[in-house]
Amino acid sequence: MRYEIRTDLALEAREGYQEAAESLRGVSVEEDYDEQREIRTTRVRIESENGAKAMGKEQGLYVTIEAVNLSQPDEGIHREVSEKLAQCLKDMHVFHEKSSVLVVGLGNEKITPDALGPYVVRNLHITRHIIREYGTSGLDGKMTFELSGLIPGVSAQTGMESLEIIQGVVRETQPELVIVVDALAARSTRRLSRTIQVTDTGIHPGSGVGNYRQGINEKSLGVPVIGIGIPTVVDAATIVHDAMVHVMEPLNEKEREAFLGETITPQLRTMFVTPKDVDETVKRLSFTISEGIHLALQHE
Amino acid sequence: MRYEIRTDLALEAREGYQEAAESLRGVSVEEDYDEQREIRTTRVRIESENGAKAMGKEQGLYVTIEAVNLSQPDEGIHREVSEKLAQCLKDMHVFHEKSSVLVVGLGNEKITPDALGPYVVRNLHITRHIIREYGTSGLDGKMTFELSGLIPGVSAQTGMESLEIIQGVVRETQPELVIVVDALAARSTRRLSRTIQVTDTGIHPGSGVGNYRQGINEKSLGVPVIGIGIPTVVDAATIVHDAMVHVMEPLNEKEREAFLGETITPQLRTMFVTPKDVDETVKRLSFTISEGIHLALQHE
Amino acid sequence: MRYEIRTDLALEAREGYQEAAESLRGVSVEEDYDEQREIRTTRVRIESENGAKAMGKEQGLYVTIEAVNLSQPDEGIHREVSEKLAQCLKDMHVFHEKSSVLVVGLGNEKITPDALGPYVVRNLHITRHIIREYGTSGLDGKMTFELSGLIPGVSAQTGMESLEIIQGVVRETQPELVIVVDALAARSTRRLSRTIQVTDTGIHPGSGVGNYRQGINEKSLGVPVIGIGIPTVVDAATIVHDAMVHVMEPLNEKEREAFLGETITPQLRTMFVTPKDVDETVKRLSFTISEGIHLALQHE
Amino acid sequence: MRYEIRTDLALEAREGYQEAAESLRGVSVEEDYDEQREIRTTRVRIESENGAKAMGKEQGLYVTIEAVNLSQPDEGIHREVSEKLAQCLKDMHVFHEKSSVLVVGLGNEKITPDALGPYVVRNLHITRHIIREYGTSGLDGKMTFELSGLIPGVSAQTGMESLEIIQGVVRETQPELVIVVDALAARSTRRLSRTIQVTDTGIHPGSGVGNYRQGINEKSLGVPVIGIGIPTVVDAATIVHDAMVHVMEPLNEKEREAFLGETITPQLRTMFVTPKDVDETVKRLSFTISEGIHLALQHE
Repeated sequence: MRYEIRTDLALEAREGYQEAAESLRGVSVEEDYDEQREIRTTRVRIESENGAKAMGKEQGLYVTIEAVNLSQPDEGIHREVSEKLAQCLKDMHVFHEKSSVLVVGLGNEKITPDALGPYVVRNLHITRHIIREYGTSGLDGKMTFELSGLIPGVSAQTGMESLEIIQGVVRETQPELVIVVDALAARSTRRLSRTIQVTDTGIHPGSGVGNYRQGINEKSLGVPVIGIGIPTVVDAATIVHDAMVHVMEPLNEKEREAFLGETITPQLRTMFVTPKDVDETVKRLSFTISEGIHLALQHE
Repeated sequence: MRYEIRTDLALEAREGYQEAAESLRGVSVEEDYDEQREIRTTRVRIESENGAKAMGKEQGLYVTIEAVNLSQPDEGIHREVSEKLAQCLKDMHVFHEKSSVLVVGLGNEKITPDALGPYVVRNLHITRHIIREYGTSGLDGKMTFELSGLIPGVSAQTGMESLEIIQGVVRETQPELVIVVDALAARSTRRLSRTIQVTDTGIHPGSGVGNYRQGINEKSLGVPVIGIGIPTVVDAATIVHDAMVHVMEPLNEKEREAFLGETITPQLRTMFVTPKDVDETVKRLSFTISEGIHLALQHE
Repeated sequence: MRYEIRTDLALEAREGYQEAAESLRGVSVEEDYDEQREIRTTRVRIESENGAKAMGKEQGLYVTIEAVNLSQPDEGIHREVSEKLAQCLKDMHVFHEKSSVLVVGLGNEKITPDALGPYVVRNLHITRHIIREYGTSGLDGKMTFELSGLIPGVSAQTGMESLEIIQGVVRETQPELVIVVDALAARSTRRLSRTIQVTDTGIHPGSGVGNYRQGINEKSLGVPVIGIGIPTVVDAATIVHDAMVHVMEPLNEKEREAFLGETITPQLRTMFVTPKDVDETVKRLSFTISEGIHLALQHE
Repeated sequence: MRYEIRTDLALEAREGYQEAAESLRGVSVEEDYDEQREIRTTRVRIESENGAKAMGKEQGLYVTIEAVNLSQPDEGIHREVSEKLAQCLKDMHVFHEKSSVLVVGLGNEKITPDALGPYVVRNLHITRHIIREYGTSGLDGKMTFELSGLIPGVSAQTGMESLEIIQGVVRETQPELVIVVDALAARSTRRLSRTIQVTDTGIHPGSGVGNYRQGINEKSLGVPVIGIGIPTVVDAATIVHDAMVHVMEPLNEKEREAFLGETITPQLRTMFVTPKDVDETVKRLSFTISEGIHLALQHE
């Protein structure tokens, strides 16, 4: 048994890799630091089969927006991150006046660290039904796009895979773009509630707090899919693993496995770690994301 | 302007009709009264085009289970009504060990009198995902059917018609039967929270607290659809109308219209009437319905 | 049996009276209409025993802020009404930098039309615990007051009268002012969600959706009490009564009673009337009130 | 800086101690194992100043009921644990037909692992208001006690200490006994959701997920206080600490501190560990506790 570090952040996947090697073919990284606002934007592009294998992620673009103060109730930083997120969405998709977008909020609304996606959908200014009935009259002139929202729930409540529900709804309502929002698992507590990952590859198996069997992506849905995620939990096993890293340095591979096997019990694998103030943080971040989506859709 | 009495109960539609005529072709009615338990079961079958027109309801079977004590927290009566409901479902559909059923809870979960459907879905023992993954092992021997549940939400939150979402999910997951649960509008406060209507015609336009454009029925979904509804509200306009009936007796048609036009303001039409204890009553009734569904699906 | 019109609005109590008489000793009324913003402010002051008896209200000042658009999602009008409310609170109490205020949200959080008070408390920027621990450092310079909040719940959930809980908490924490927020019953659907009543007499028996036995006021709490209320329901019986007014004109007192006795059934008395969109309206109005409280407490 | 293991369980505090010493004066322990039902009951009595200091707990009786299957949805075990809990409450307090008991649910209802207390209160059959108004008529003959319930909320929402609110309410309503229910922090994930601790010492500083400054006990409230707690979280720091124990064996005290100082970051201290299915588990356990309280209060 090898202990596998679980992370949904391409940024972290790459860090893991860098520990062993200096450069990685087929993976390009650009970083931009906005010093005044203390916002770091990292663009990881996985361009080859090889890169994808090495990173354990699909080929595509992963943009990470990091702001240390994002977990704080500072309205300024949230507005600025919303704007960065809007720009990022516009880079990935060409929005126009009549864009039709379906936002899907994955996760379990009743467990706070998993409720980010549903909260985002609840914050949105849904317009599709108004436009279908009355056209754009009655809407704010800037919001003439068709926005719809779906909270598919979790298998234990529905008996269905999220993907099945989304596929059905997409086929029926035919949006031009699907944005999937989900709470993610990070490798490091350092990134919790401070990082937004936006990717044109959707959401992938084994990701997040929930556990989706198949990718929710352009291939499975037939329309472009952008995934937006914020890490809100770390696996309990990961926390312990990371604390052990230095201790295990003198050990060989086999000794490490034995050591981890003892330390990381099966029960620990059913636990997650989350900040004590996750309730308020997730609510705040859900507004940052919904605002970013609104900004991306508005035209001047 | 003619004031139209709005009711979702076939029972009441027929009462309205009886006021003017003694018999109605193409509509048969059977009544059964369980004296000991004080439960009245009425089966209204609309068998012809004419009958359907006269009743303002689709052709099909409408069974109404009435129990005066159903609005009370008396566990005995709730169990008995669950059993009647189960029997009624079995009369309308042949369930077998491997039945696959999707239960759809219509309505707005955040407005109590409209939350009946969502509450019922939350009470269900969902099994479809377990059977798909592990087969029937691990399940109670009596519960080997595939049960799934969907809460489509309301247009103002999703931007989509409930029908669109249900159509998509049915096409994707192919249940053999859909059961749609909804809060209904009654004509009389006397029936609120005391009556369950079960029909093999699904749910129809203008019904309920919400307002669905198109029928959610076998025609639109491609599989049999059973509708279960409990009246939880009365239109405010109806209350006033009914209070007026005696007063208007001496008036002619035209005078009546003028009188009602003055009394029933447009604003009154945006209001509904509901019992002060609707919160607890809806919760209790949701268990009666989910229990009835479980009983119908269990085999001996 | 005489049918008693139930209203919590002093404005409406006076209207009822005016129907019979032209002027009322001991009750003064001032009205102010802000034409541009379409906000009407009415100040009813009950100054004598006689006036109090005639109005069925305690002696004191009742200010009513009415705005037709208040039930709409127009941010402009909500901001303006918040400002009017703040001014009104300042007229009733002299706030200073170190004011300590307890806001009590009455009502049942689980039944939307009754949830106004709890929602307002949930919106507040609570500071008392911060100031007790760290002083005013770390707070926004304008918010140096001690604000605390209490949601006492309803008797059916707590087994206690709201007054008992509030008395206990006030004795223990000694705020200089208590603001009690509650959903009210109006006489007319016309006023629902469009009217805010502010009074220096607190909240009184028979008021609101709930039913408090004893006044929550300066006399029972030992500190000044301001009541803020918004009508969100009308008794179902009242709706019917009002529709009958013209019909009953030719009848004498005795005939009227007989007529109403028939029309207004005991069951109707357990029902209330509320707008279909009460869910969103109450949420919006709760922000208008909490914002008004914040503005009143801020110093320049 | 010494890393202090945080546990609210007397059982665990003693285990910690036993690691260093064989016996502890002033602390008596009795254990009882119900083999058939696999329920272990441990009674730790701290009888002296010395014992209290060594254990880091107040003098008093701490009963722990452990059942491995308690985290499972097995109704049988829940009923049996409810009965053990009832017996335990009866051992600590002499209930009679007219007992008046206030149950206080501590914690934040919006964060699932902290919501145990509020959930328990919501499950109770509250009777005090009925008895005050109608006497015992209308009540089930077995439930003639006065039961009231309070959910004081958390400081961030109320601006008040839970103790202040409880003191006020107790002074006003004068129950003969207060039962305080809270989610606890355990030292080991092994005990999460499987252990109930009942103590006649109330709830103490630094306990639980929240952080109460002063004890909620007979001394502060003036009436006997029984605390009921279930561990639902473990400090993230504790998980890491425990994983380190073997690694640190060869180190001396000073080296250990240095080592832990590096490994257990300040940020880790703001995190907690909780099972992924905590949502359902906490709901189930809340019923086990409320049922136990009901059983203790019923007379034959």
